[in-house]
Amino acid sequence: MKIAVIGTGAVGGYYGALLAKNGFEVHFLLHSDFQHVKNHGLLVNSVNGDIKLADVNAYAKPEDMPPCDIAIIALKTTSNDLLKNILPHAVKPDAVIVTLQNGIGVEKQVSDILPKATIIGGLCFLCANKIGPGHIHHLDYGAIRMGQYRNDETPAGITRQLKMVSDIFARGTIQVELTGDLGRARWEKLAWNIPFNGLSVILNADTGQLINSISAQTLIRSIIREVIRAAGSCGHDIGDAFEEKMVVATRKMVPYKPSMKLDYEAKRPLEIGMIYQNAIHIAGASGFTMEKTQMIKQQLEYLDEENRLAMRS
Amino acid sequence: MKIAVIGTGAVGGYYGALLAKNGFEVHFLLHSDFQHVKNHGLLVNSVNGDIKLADVNAYAKPEDMPPCDIAIIALKTTSNDLLKNILPHAVKPDAVIVTLQNGIGVEKQVSDILPKATIIGGLCFLCANKIGPGHIHHLDYGAIRMGQYRNDETPAGITRQLKMVSDIFARGTIQVELTGDLGRARWEKLAWNIPFNGLSVILNADTGQLINSISAQTLIRSIIREVIRAAGSCGHDIGDAFEEKMVVATRKMVPYKPSMKLDYEAKRPLEIGMIYQNAIHIAGASGFTMEKTQMIKQQLEYLDEENRLAMRS
Repeated sequence: MKIAVIGTGAVGGYYGALLAKNGFEVHFLLHSDFQHVKNHGLLVNSVNGDIKLADVNAYAKPEDMPPCDIAIIALKTTSNDLLKNILPHAVKPDAVIVTLQNGIGVEKQVSDILPKATIIGGLCFLCANKIGPGHIHHLDYGAIRMGQYRNDETPAGITRQLKMVSDIFARGTIQVELTGDLGRARWEKLAWNIPFNGLSVILNADTGQLINSISAQTLIRSIIREVIRAAGSCGHDIGDAFEEKMVVATRKMVPYKPSMKLDYEAKRPLEIGMIYQNAIHIAGASGFTMEKTQMIKQQLEYLDEENRLAMRS
Repeated sequence: MKIAVIGTGAVGGYYGALLAKNGFEVHFLLHSDFQHVKNHGLLVNSVNGDIKLADVNAYAKPEDMPPCDIAIIALKTTSNDLLKNILPHAVKPDAVIVTLQNGIGVEKQVSDILPKATIIGGLCFLCANKIGPGHIHHLDYGAIRMGQYRNDETPAGITRQLKMVSDIFARGTIQVELTGDLGRARWEKLAWNIPFNGLSVILNADTGQLINSISAQTLIRSIIREVIRAAGSCGHDIGDAFEEKMVVATRKMVPYKPSMKLDYEAKRPLEIGMIYQNAIHIAGASGFTMEKTQMIKQQLEYLDEENRLAMRS
């Protein structure tokens, strides 16, 4: 059984290295780090002990990869336009695809490219950064919440394929929690990502600064409530108590910079499409207008433009 | 006839100097610049020719001022809590008060302090900064739109007192435009100030950057529409075409930093209360919720807190 890792950044590198270390045949697709990893391998400095993969199946082009049985998609979603050229080379048509990406709507993109594939959505609770070519720093956490995707967007339940993937990850010493309702899980994660990712960029703040300010927390709570209502309009009853749960959980975290804040500081494109635009679009199709989310999105679009213009000038 | 200038910053210093230069007896209340102005006078470097007032009636305390017939209030609105201690000393009980301040609700504050006063609201279209103690730089514009305030907030029309004040300012070579409907004029100015002041701080941008970005302009237009609807709920029919008018006018301006952006950069408190909180409150009392304005206000509150905390640490 061959496993492809599509996008070997912090997420793909970390989980791929764990699977490879535990005996799986893993094929890594890389971009800028290809030559370095080909020559020097992958290094993960982890709180759970370092992983050094000296001999890595590294590829710069998807057409060089063997057709794999399982693919982990771990690109930044801002590169998802590449998937239609990558996936047909990297995987078998009936492969199992595990999408470890932020936001909502990723599984549908994959399903449009590979109609016969089994698609498992994964939500990573991982604190890891890429700190150099082929070099990943794993700071904390690492669990994945997984659920199977169905084309009609209804809950798939705990399927045989989901259990199969979960077993593989477990053998890679990765903690997995299964959900029978991927859509609801995606919306729950959005209820955190929509306020915290965006406001960390807009207000130049980490999670601790945001949650400890009364003004910012009030704003965050109102955005969480909007996401909960949006989810409800799409048939996912998250429940009002989720607002308090998110605030309490964030207050307990060691303050950190959400991924979008790190992207902004590195002048990388922000994941506005998958986290904001898709949520607004999906809720809108159910008749719910995400006013606050829309405003955050527009502010982020402006900041993203200016940020990347500044890089080029 | 004695004229008091309450707050001798860019606005009070500029208009007060024009009146004094043109023969009026003007008494200036100062705070940090008192000793400098007492010793060295006031200097206005203006595009229309410099003004040097060597001998200035300068005061550090309102109780030292003579009771004046007319007062120009030109404090930052963040200091308006001082008015209840200043005005009873500085003016006669039946004085004419001209409020040259941003936002909405200023006239009511004055009316509560001086129930017998005639209150004229003024909206300044002035580009001027204080660049040193008693030293003002006047870059452009300078007209004032004036209307009389009535306690019941209904349009006062063009009154005798309004014409009297307008004549005095005209003799001071200040361009004045009269309005019979101060409430509507205040809301029209809010339709610009609410988006541009707030977003210049939040998005770290001048007016040119905001108006030339499609994302930012889309957001600005949606906020202008919200303010127009809020004004409508309060009985002021600004009309939908005002949105386009504001965008076109801003596009024609030389790009500049709105006053709130300058306050933020100087780590001065932001005028959130008068521009945002009062507008939200007044519209709310008419049953209209200013969702976008509320969100801008919350973002500004957070940034203002952090900005001034940073100063102290």
